[in-house]
Amino acid sequence: MANELFVYNTLIRKKVKFEPLNPPFVGMYVCGPTVYSHAHLGNARPAITFDILYRYLNFLGYKVRYVSNITDVGHLEGDTDDGEDKLIKKAKLEKLEPMEIAQQFMNSYHEDMAALNVIRPNIEPRATGHIPEQIEMIEKIMQNGYAYEANGSVYFDVNTYNTDHNYGELSGRDIEDLISGTRELTSQDEKKSSLDFALWKKADQTHLMRWNSPWGLGFPGWHLECSVMSTKYLGDEFDIHGGGLDLLFPHHDCEIAQSMGGLKCKSVKYWMHNNMLTMNGQKMAKSLGNTITLKQFFTGEHDMLERTYHPMIIRFLILQAHYRSTLDFSNEALQAAEKGYNKLVEAYKTLQSLSSSDKSTVDIKNLEGDCRKVMNDDLNTPMLIANLFEGVKIINSVNDKKETISAEDLSELKSIFDNYLVSILGLKVISSDDKNDDVMDGLMNLILEIRDEARTKKDFDTSDKIRDQLNKINLEIKDGKDGSNWVWKN
Amino acid sequence: MANELFVYNTLIRKKVKFEPLNPPFVGMYVCGPTVYSHAHLGNARPAITFDILYRYLNFLGYKVRYVSNITDVGHLEGDTDDGEDKLIKKAKLEKLEPMEIAQQFMNSYHEDMAALNVIRPNIEPRATGHIPEQIEMIEKIMQNGYAYEANGSVYFDVNTYNTDHNYGELSGRDIEDLISGTRELTSQDEKKSSLDFALWKKADQTHLMRWNSPWGLGFPGWHLECSVMSTKYLGDEFDIHGGGLDLLFPHHDCEIAQSMGGLKCKSVKYWMHNNMLTMNGQKMAKSLGNTITLKQFFTGEHDMLERTYHPMIIRFLILQAHYRSTLDFSNEALQAAEKGYNKLVEAYKTLQSLSSSDKSTVDIKNLEGDCRKVMNDDLNTPMLIANLFEGVKIINSVNDKKETISAEDLSELKSIFDNYLVSILGLKVISSDDKNDDVMDGLMNLILEIRDEARTKKDFDTSDKIRDQLNKINLEIKDGKDGSNWVWKN
Repeated sequence: MANELFVYNTLIRKKVKFEPLNPPFVGMYVCGPTVYSHAHLGNARPAITFDILYRYLNFLGYKVRYVSNITDVGHLEGDTDDGEDKLIKKAKLEKLEPMEIAQQFMNSYHEDMAALNVIRPNIEPRATGHIPEQIEMIEKIMQNGYAYEANGSVYFDVNTYNTDHNYGELSGRDIEDLISGTRELTSQDEKKSSLDFALWKKADQTHLMRWNSPWGLGFPGWHLECSVMSTKYLGDEFDIHGGGLDLLFPHHDCEIAQSMGGLKCKSVKYWMHNNMLTMNGQKMAKSLGNTITLKQFFTGEHDMLERTYHPMIIRFLILQAHYRSTLDFSNEALQAAEKGYNKLVEAYKTLQSLSSSDKSTVDIKNLEGDCRKVMNDDLNTPMLIANLFEGVKIINSVNDKKETISAEDLSELKSIFDNYLVSILGLKVISSDDKNDDVMDGLMNLILEIRDEARTKKDFDTSDKIRDQLNKINLEIKDGKDGSNWVWKN
Repeated sequence: MANELFVYNTLIRKKVKFEPLNPPFVGMYVCGPTVYSHAHLGNARPAITFDILYRYLNFLGYKVRYVSNITDVGHLEGDTDDGEDKLIKKAKLEKLEPMEIAQQFMNSYHEDMAALNVIRPNIEPRATGHIPEQIEMIEKIMQNGYAYEANGSVYFDVNTYNTDHNYGELSGRDIEDLISGTRELTSQDEKKSSLDFALWKKADQTHLMRWNSPWGLGFPGWHLECSVMSTKYLGDEFDIHGGGLDLLFPHHDCEIAQSMGGLKCKSVKYWMHNNMLTMNGQKMAKSLGNTITLKQFFTGEHDMLERTYHPMIIRFLILQAHYRSTLDFSNEALQAAEKGYNKLVEAYKTLQSLSSSDKSTVDIKNLEGDCRKVMNDDLNTPMLIANLFEGVKIINSVNDKKETISAEDLSELKSIFDNYLVSILGLKVISSDDKNDDVMDGLMNLILEIRDEARTKKDFDTSDKIRDQLNKINLEIKDGKDGSNWVWKN
């Protein structure tokens, strides 16, 4: 198992060896954000989880095409078909064009993901950009007898599908239980069964986002876009489909039904799901006031946050739990994560300046294997971090001259940290770029003050040294009547 | 004229007062990039020109919706209809999915624009995301008698259109001249006239990007997307359409014909065009080896570049010429621009720390009016920069104690620089964030060296001062056996 990647496949509820359909190519699709507001903490977990998978697959030498969608239409309130389209609701409130809102929050999402060092997917298809493809998929599903039109809308016929296939197989739901759990249809309902879900919804004249279709003006149902865009860019059958556990039902079960209903195949080989985050032990929900945006974490502007948290701290805390475990966020947990993260970063810096000796008194021969082994075990990032902390101990003991390290071992240790800390976990060493100009100003004020004192004491060695050293890094001191100042040199 | 914006309308070849159709709202559309390679210098000029217009309209209080497209399909080689789609050609070469290439270079374009401090448009519609809308527009044009189908493609019928309207009115071309300037149709040609251009092109089986249409599988002609997406998001009639002068013909003349042919109205009130850039006096062309990407300017990696140029220098050089003038790029011009830009930035910094006196010996009462007057005169940015340099003189003379400035005048001067230099010209003061970590390391090495010397000399006042000042900006010194080091504090 050590040299082969195993992943947990939700479909069969066990860890299995990862064998792509067409090695070395891997096709991977992950459900992306709905862009009607700023991304919140919950958006960070799937993004980071599948970023790790993407990075690790690349590290293993696979050629991965990673597709993740942007939902800019059709996500109905509460996952029911009678809710108002979320984007359109916001547009009415703000008197804006829906696409202007989508653009604003898509840009905001990209900013946040960049801050979290999440690599952009190879393709980020937008739902509104694939209307013809969605209409074609509906037509195929109808031709195969698994969908019907009613009053300008088209619904997936769950009961008919379930006679041929197994609706709910991913979430393990039984259709009889599902039926008894939903309300009875009323005479106004146009659906045949309360389980049926919309593939296409009729739009009235006030609806801002609508397109022509064989069934009149309307817009696609939310579940449809993922079935359509994943298979358009990855082929009818592809390797990995990821997303949050909250999407298991109905979204992913509906995707399976749509793909089987339209394309007559199981599109996805490995279904992978990240677990949920809680905040101070509570589920995050707007009604509880604990849905915190990522930007609020970065700026500290939320009542529940004691202060700002650097994006790398968010990323590190998420990686400290296995992606299939629940994870609780709190100020305490964040501050503890910050301490651990800083230790890793300091050790990484120390590592760069470590000197080697003739022979090693430290033993690192199993470290790379240990790192790989835990990553191969369904991306066990908390265990990987624990292994890297074994490396930190070695770095610090060599730095403290308690141990020695050979050149060969030092090179191996550097390679382990570069691969696993930087490339695979995607953790950035926080640099001066991330700090604000205050630091630069603070340092320069200190240096100018020392120089002024030196000149007062006629210690021209020191003042000349300061001038020369600053020159080397392209800074120039300007002496004026009110004291000295500095500028970037031309 | 001083208090009213005048813009040069290419359609009527003169400067006219800007009067939006529905004040305070302004709809503005600008032709964006084709994303099949990294953005080159030529992409910077329209982006910066219309960024200035967008910023200035916002400054004047207008509520602007700024739409700029991303062409990810349908831009044919050499603007002829028989060329191969550029994106698809690259995809075949690289064995990549066209949308993966489009995504890669769209991301690259956004990076470059962010570096140039170009504000993202409110909506960036993609051509592939608006296939149904393009098909509908074609149907309207056909219904109105200005287009015909031939062998699965649809062409705009220029001669028929020209009997009712005036084809070529924007570029001022005469249709008789155009006809005599093109080759004769051969018997293989499916077009009625060599002037006719494709609205929809039939795609063969090998074509990677194709969609269903009433005329079979195909893809839209390049000119069409702009007519469709501008009017979709701004309405059938809108205020401003911008782009490079190279797009005047045929692209913009075709747009006018398409809008009139489909929507029966002149969609655009003000047509605005930026002039072209040259490099060392030569037109930029791939065959001349002088098409330099923006990333190459930023990294200096091109034979024609003596060194790297900060994105703000590119921006400043572009703004030093009026947008309707040609502008020559060269190492000399860039380095001269850099000197001028640095002077402005230094003066801006000085301004922040200037002290006021009881009365002014400087006269700034006309400065704001002068700035506004030249911007109102068709965005005369070189004159605006000249006016700001008048401000620089005042700042430096007050800083040198040759002149005095009252608190009121100082506040006014700050406001002028904040508005015109920062908000309208969009020039960033280069901060430590733009420099690399070397500066931080250089400063810290200098400080640690001074501290070591102070400790050697038992000058504990200095060494304590250094420790305390660093503490204030969150830096901690760590003393080890091999000397001192520094870390960010937790």
